[in-house]
Amino acid sequence: MLHNFKISNFDLHLYLASKRKQINDSLIDILNDISSSGRIVKAMKYSVMAGGKRIRPIMCIAAAEAVDGKPENVLIVACALEMIHTYSLIHDDLPAMDNDDLRRGKPTCHIAFDEATAILAGDALLTFAFQTLSSIELINKENALRWLSVIHEISLAAGCEGMIEGQMKDIASEGSLLALDGLQDMHSLKTGALIEASISSGAILGGGNPKQIEKHRIYAKNIGLAFQVTDDILNIEGEPAVLGKAVGTDKAHNKNTYPSIIGIEKSKEYAKELVNNALQALDYFDNKANPLRAIARYIIERKR
Amino acid sequence: MLHNFKISNFDLHLYLASKRKQINDSLIDILNDISSSGRIVKAMKYSVMAGGKRIRPIMCIAAAEAVDGKPENVLIVACALEMIHTYSLIHDDLPAMDNDDLRRGKPTCHIAFDEATAILAGDALLTFAFQTLSSIELINKENALRWLSVIHEISLAAGCEGMIEGQMKDIASEGSLLALDGLQDMHSLKTGALIEASISSGAILGGGNPKQIEKHRIYAKNIGLAFQVTDDILNIEGEPAVLGKAVGTDKAHNKNTYPSIIGIEKSKEYAKELVNNALQALDYFDNKANPLRAIARYIIERKR
Repeated sequence: MLHNFKISNFDLHLYLASKRKQINDSLIDILNDISSSGRIVKAMKYSVMAGGKRIRPIMCIAAAEAVDGKPENVLIVACALEMIHTYSLIHDDLPAMDNDDLRRGKPTCHIAFDEATAILAGDALLTFAFQTLSSIELINKENALRWLSVIHEISLAAGCEGMIEGQMKDIASEGSLLALDGLQDMHSLKTGALIEASISSGAILGGGNPKQIEKHRIYAKNIGLAFQVTDDILNIEGEPAVLGKAVGTDKAHNKNTYPSIIGIEKSKEYAKELVNNALQALDYFDNKANPLRAIARYIIERKR
Repeated sequence: MLHNFKISNFDLHLYLASKRKQINDSLIDILNDISSSGRIVKAMKYSVMAGGKRIRPIMCIAAAEAVDGKPENVLIVACALEMIHTYSLIHDDLPAMDNDDLRRGKPTCHIAFDEATAILAGDALLTFAFQTLSSIELINKENALRWLSVIHEISLAAGCEGMIEGQMKDIASEGSLLALDGLQDMHSLKTGALIEASISSGAILGGGNPKQIEKHRIYAKNIGLAFQVTDDILNIEGEPAVLGKAVGTDKAHNKNTYPSIIGIEKSKEYAKELVNNALQALDYFDNKANPLRAIARYIIERKR
């Protein structure tokens, strides 16, 4: 049974769709502002607009709203987070890494363009994220230090002490058996760190106080892991047609997953426990945190 | 004949050696502060410490000194610039790009490690540069907006409107003949933009006024091109033993160079003209700009 909370009159799917539209519109605007228009910009736009769930930017905005911040004040951070996420997917898909030809049913960047362009498009999106995060004409001057701390937190989460170290651990673990803490550690770095930075940056720039930001971090850590555990479960029990991708691939590739280490039933219990922890951290907030609450529940109930 | 200026009691080689030591010490300190110590950090350190000339960070410091700024105030920017430069070399050397096995006589990153590690080490250095640039505990709070503008300028210079677009143009021009303005445009983006950002960021954080920063930019644009023209000349007339690499390679690969387009004598005249323009821009400054003056002269007189 999930931690008790009531969400009246709140339609998560409407919320997600509306935020997704706001983020997509903003991403298009920002990418269209690039002065050059050659092949590299085409590749950047191709991958960014290839249809992601926009989970990180939505969480960033929802975190700002939970502390009574305005979504428009964190929109460029939300977009920068999606650029960083997209760059990581482009590079992960490269022949030297996962060598994937398809992502979300579309050719990956190095297939649609070529390998050199894909490497550079990833580099360019990562760089452009920081260019976007430092657009001083959009930044309230009194908040300059907060913006610097957000840039620092995001780069820390994305770099060799975060996402990139997680990807290295993922590569290193191929073909070998991980224990639960090794798997936990890998996911915390590979996906958890950027999810936490998405939520904390929303809370920081939304004007959250230290206690609120701390509660957001607890929420984020739990949600990040729950998201991964559910991904692993869906790879076993999901419907390929609903999921939009094949199932059973983890087992076929001998991947370390929560079900492979602790079994499928314990994985489901663990996902619920994580979501409960996340919801408890939100007890500190009023109904402005309802989107975060609904997202937490959605994460383990989703079918895709 | 070079633009008239006198530099008394100034030993450029001593200056370069002393700054290079300061930068190397600082780079080692910053890289040793990374909390993880796995393969990715080894690859980052390997490439950063593979023995570059440190021209960009030295210019950043010299620009700060020219406006009476303290070197130690721009040292982290100088280091971040070298990280960005190093990341660009790691990715340029990849099999999908220039496919180079050696750089400065040492195995390139993907040879010394592997391709996936080299891609991620480049990504990590780029990300770590921004992490370094936003280390708020090192930043004077009153200067936060200046730091944001420097982050913006560096990301603009390194990204899809600067260095990366230049690399795309370089790849696209292979095997086809460029006109002089096409070559100029490619170099201005590929190397010029980051050199200009190195100098302007030093001037901005050194406390330069708008007029001083403008003069620095003129200096930088001219120096950046002069550096490239001289590189092209050295590829024809250099001594391999002094240069540390083979000559004649541009011609063998049918590369577009200044000598191939305007001839070697006109290239030499053009390099002098560019350095003269750079020196004229420095007339605005007192003898604190002597390092920049000496660097300008050195750039076309160097044998390697």
